[in-house]
Amino acid sequence: MWVPLHFTDGKLVAVVGEDFPDKHVQFLKSRNVDVSGLQKSAGRTFRWKGEYGYDLNEARTLDTQLNVFESFKPKIPEAYRSSEVVFLANIDPVLQREVLHQIDKPKLVACDTMNFWIGGKKDELVKTLAEVDILLINEAEARELAGEPNLVKAARAVQAMGPSTLIVKRGEYGSVMFNSGGIFSAPAYPLEAVFDPTGAGDSFAGGFMGYLDNVQNFNEASLRQAIIFGSVMASFNVEDFSLNRMRSLDYKEIEGRYREFRKITFFEDIA
Amino acid sequence: MWVPLHFTDGKLVAVVGEDFPDKHVQFLKSRNVDVSGLQKSAGRTFRWKGEYGYDLNEARTLDTQLNVFESFKPKIPEAYRSSEVVFLANIDPVLQREVLHQIDKPKLVACDTMNFWIGGKKDELVKTLAEVDILLINEAEARELAGEPNLVKAARAVQAMGPSTLIVKRGEYGSVMFNSGGIFSAPAYPLEAVFDPTGAGDSFAGGFMGYLDNVQNFNEASLRQAIIFGSVMASFNVEDFSLNRMRSLDYKEIEGRYREFRKITFFEDIA
Repeated sequence: MWVPLHFTDGKLVAVVGEDFPDKHVQFLKSRNVDVSGLQKSAGRTFRWKGEYGYDLNEARTLDTQLNVFESFKPKIPEAYRSSEVVFLANIDPVLQREVLHQIDKPKLVACDTMNFWIGGKKDELVKTLAEVDILLINEAEARELAGEPNLVKAARAVQAMGPSTLIVKRGEYGSVMFNSGGIFSAPAYPLEAVFDPTGAGDSFAGGFMGYLDNVQNFNEASLRQAIIFGSVMASFNVEDFSLNRMRSLDYKEIEGRYREFRKITFFEDIA
Repeated sequence: MWVPLHFTDGKLVAVVGEDFPDKHVQFLKSRNVDVSGLQKSAGRTFRWKGEYGYDLNEARTLDTQLNVFESFKPKIPEAYRSSEVVFLANIDPVLQREVLHQIDKPKLVACDTMNFWIGGKKDELVKTLAEVDILLINEAEARELAGEPNLVKAARAVQAMGPSTLIVKRGEYGSVMFNSGGIFSAPAYPLEAVFDPTGAGDSFAGGFMGYLDNVQNFNEASLRQAIIFGSVMASFNVEDFSLNRMRSLDYKEIEGRYREFRKITFFEDIA
């Protein structure tokens, strides 16, 4: 069965080890993801092990093995250089810039990061942020990066580092976007069973960036819609282990949940 | 200067001690609050002392003195008995029912409670809940009451106890309403300076109930609007100590912030 792409044609840049099962690569290919930027290196694939507490909002890291990530040198295939929408996923901020500088004229650059880089490589991270339009980050990380507990003030401090738009992810409390269009607050989809929160942030970024690349329009209305699509994809992702829910997901379900978000947030104006 | 009432004419039932400054009673009177149900008893007024941590979401109780509350027997003035909209604020669930049973034919009954009663008088609380339409409660308390970490499941369990509508307050993450109209999710107003979160939940209840009493309509659209008015009042309350912000607040500011809530939550449908 041919499964239509939900949002856009992705071009992947990543590294895996020799242990990485080929079936996962085949799955990406079956979804029209360009994997020519996927390197296979000697050694084992990156591994992360964690656990979640009572309310599933915060992951506790039990073990991180960088493995092939340690010596990763991203090489951007020729065919990728004309990409206009670039997402720098959570890696060493030095590598994020190396990727970005291999793209000719990106129109929109977003990036993710984590406490590991905020604490350990803040100077490099700040350099990367100076070249970025949108930062997607967890709430605790936004506060840590800015050194400021109040989120509105923290957002202003982060924006002063470069990104004109800051998107703060709050797990089951949704997300908030800060930019020149003001503040946009989106809930998370209320789920009765959260199976595995791992990768929710990445699914969010996928839906968000995919939608923007699809519509090729980065105005306030599109950014807000993109946040809802990001929230939709994150909500599906946590319904099953790994990427399993994504395998069966079709666009009709995505559209249906988008409309659910409209319903759960709607209230009338006052006379 | 005459200050118009924001929402409705309140009728207060409460107890204070001999130490309670008369100026506070005068302030309530100046806002057309009926204080004929306010008893003054021998002894000291109820006292609570607490502190807030880094993110201001959770209060830590340092000291609670029930004082005159301990022997409080609410007596409802004759003029109150025809009240149609009743809010049972956070007291002993036995007293909540004693108040309620002195009202002739309430059309809408809402109540608040706290972990103290959930832990210590659950059987009595459950009896009160059986007679209530709307429960307003903190997130952790909703989970505790239901014995269930997932909020959607917890809501269903609480609804089975009686209240057809459950409103879960989440501090700076806003609130969620569960009822037969589905789920409604409202953000908190993003504030740059939270001065004192004490009383935010009570201000929320005030705006919420006041609006419903004003419009005399308890359908889904009104409930959602009432939640936004509750959120608006809570957001003003935390801008200053005690009720100070309420003293200067006018309806134009309330209306303005309601419209801000519309702006920060709006996103377009998809084609």
